[in-house]
Amino acid sequence: MKIIKETISRIKPLNEKAMEQARQRQDLLTKPSGSLGRLEELSVQLAGIREDFFPPDSKKVIVAMAADHGVTAEGVSAFPREVTAQMVLNFIHNGAGVNVLARLNGAEVKVVDIGIDGEVDSPLVKKAKVRYGTANMCLGKAMSREEACRAVAVGISVAEEEIEAGTLVLGTGEMGIGNSTASSAVATALTGRPPSMLAGRGTGLDDQGLERKINVLERALALHRPDPRDPLDVLSKVGGLELGGLAGLILGAAAHRRPVIIDGFISTAAALLAVSLCPTVRSYLIPSHLSREPGHGFLLDFMQLQPYLHLNMCLGEGTGAALAMSLVEAASRIMLEMATFEGAGISNKEGLRV
Amino acid sequence: MKIIKETISRIKPLNEKAMEQARQRQDLLTKPSGSLGRLEELSVQLAGIREDFFPPDSKKVIVAMAADHGVTAEGVSAFPREVTAQMVLNFIHNGAGVNVLARLNGAEVKVVDIGIDGEVDSPLVKKAKVRYGTANMCLGKAMSREEACRAVAVGISVAEEEIEAGTLVLGTGEMGIGNSTASSAVATALTGRPPSMLAGRGTGLDDQGLERKINVLERALALHRPDPRDPLDVLSKVGGLELGGLAGLILGAAAHRRPVIIDGFISTAAALLAVSLCPTVRSYLIPSHLSREPGHGFLLDFMQLQPYLHLNMCLGEGTGAALAMSLVEAASRIMLEMATFEGAGISNKEGLRV
Repeated sequence: MKIIKETISRIKPLNEKAMEQARQRQDLLTKPSGSLGRLEELSVQLAGIREDFFPPDSKKVIVAMAADHGVTAEGVSAFPREVTAQMVLNFIHNGAGVNVLARLNGAEVKVVDIGIDGEVDSPLVKKAKVRYGTANMCLGKAMSREEACRAVAVGISVAEEEIEAGTLVLGTGEMGIGNSTASSAVATALTGRPPSMLAGRGTGLDDQGLERKINVLERALALHRPDPRDPLDVLSKVGGLELGGLAGLILGAAAHRRPVIIDGFISTAAALLAVSLCPTVRSYLIPSHLSREPGHGFLLDFMQLQPYLHLNMCLGEGTGAALAMSLVEAASRIMLEMATFEGAGISNKEGLRV
Repeated sequence: MKIIKETISRIKPLNEKAMEQARQRQDLLTKPSGSLGRLEELSVQLAGIREDFFPPDSKKVIVAMAADHGVTAEGVSAFPREVTAQMVLNFIHNGAGVNVLARLNGAEVKVVDIGIDGEVDSPLVKKAKVRYGTANMCLGKAMSREEACRAVAVGISVAEEEIEAGTLVLGTGEMGIGNSTASSAVATALTGRPPSMLAGRGTGLDDQGLERKINVLERALALHRPDPRDPLDVLSKVGGLELGGLAGLILGAAAHRRPVIIDGFISTAAALLAVSLCPTVRSYLIPSHLSREPGHGFLLDFMQLQPYLHLNMCLGEGTGAALAMSLVEAASRIMLEMATFEGAGISNKEGLRV
């Protein structure tokens, strides 16, 4: 699809000169060089993305993509399918975890219906439905290749809309009963590791449920044999509409030089789709937390991303991304609000006031 | 000293009933049970401390205790001694890392001169000087036992003053060139592990400097043989005035049922002093980040505390505590701002709207 190719062609590496300027600035600030650790590295990454120091009080938005999954017919989720639409209403009424954490950390939550199996009638939900949930991946393709492309294109266009409205930091979020199964399937297909390594308890499966989930993954992957070199093939055969949407959101953000904070396991599977489509996108990603979902740490390692927050969460929605918004703000403010050795009249390591 | 004994006698275990009520509340919120992981556990801990749900928008204060160290004469720090007083001025002018991060996370920074070797003349610095820096622990006791007790008493009284003024969450901070050496000495004495395991590069020692620091620790500990069962003996022989002050701050906070966020290596050594004086205090501690200083992770493990933030920082000052203030706020808000399954009309795991 043309828009995906065009977007990918616009994604450029980080700006080395801006990163070097950020490093030099960090070394003037009143602290031992490097002592703010990964917060300094984050400020350098942000400068490389933005081609300048990243401004404080940036507009921050978490995009929560919602969709249903045909694979829930196989009994892979602890919660019933109708919860997707019910939780979307909870999102727009500001009652979900992601709402509370986003509000605290200065971010808005935008909800996109990219594939709910039903209608959520509210002007607060962006309507971009590609189809009414995916088909059951154990019986056939989750969606057609054309639908997979459209899901990615939805994400690109949502990113562009938000950026047009002034958003500087994007975060990924999602809601979709069954989407940890789709994420495990995508992760299995793209990394070549066994489902048993990449499947977890999701919203609370018991041992038997987890065994069933692994079996479902094995059946679906044996049926489709998705091509790991063709991420859109993987997405269409065993993916989810929100996974495609989030991959598109990430590509769109990177094309416009915006950082994207990646939430938990589902979001990280979407990030892997995006990185598989365009490896340069990796440097635009900001990991947030390390989920309890066992495949999450593996996927982060696989992309050489290191999580900042160790909270043992497994809620998704964008909750980890919301918490990490404050780290982006911290990294930005340090650059501009901390005094320099010279300005504060403080002796340097050589014992001289500079 | 009477005030220390009295304070310790007022420290009680967490309130089990309030913790159970908090757990029950968490299970009503619109998320799979336990899915907010350690954020849920933190809300339970906070309820146990406060004997009720912990209120949002709580008043938060980071107390930064400043002092000098005679052991700097041995060449154990990358920065010259006068930087302690210079950085204190930077703190009160809001130019330090801790100021930027505290402001972002809704906390105030209060600076206490508990032992600067000089005068910092500002009404913004609380004057509670016990002595003009410690003596060189390689030649004699860092301070007398009476001075060690007074340092702890200063911390208790600062905690009580802040609590009187409405503070609900305290955080530890410090400034003192040479204080990572004193912290390593205290940690070595209290844990019985070798100095090589508990000494690090502090503000930026090179290999030779680190070797010298370990040698200094070995000499000081051989000279004094501090008694690990007597934390005040350890403090007086190889400690620092700010370490005593922070230990007192922690005891004072716990005695008044306030949580204390523990910053990095220096603060964690102070926390170990407090826990050694009164083991019950441990449940009032909230760890923040995992420092790059190699002894930090060991001390946290030793007290069975798990850090939340993995940022590879090693600045101290209270910077990690400042960042973790937002996690306390997050844990509090979730309890009161998230919708319940019943309130939001969402189906539970059994597929029933409750």
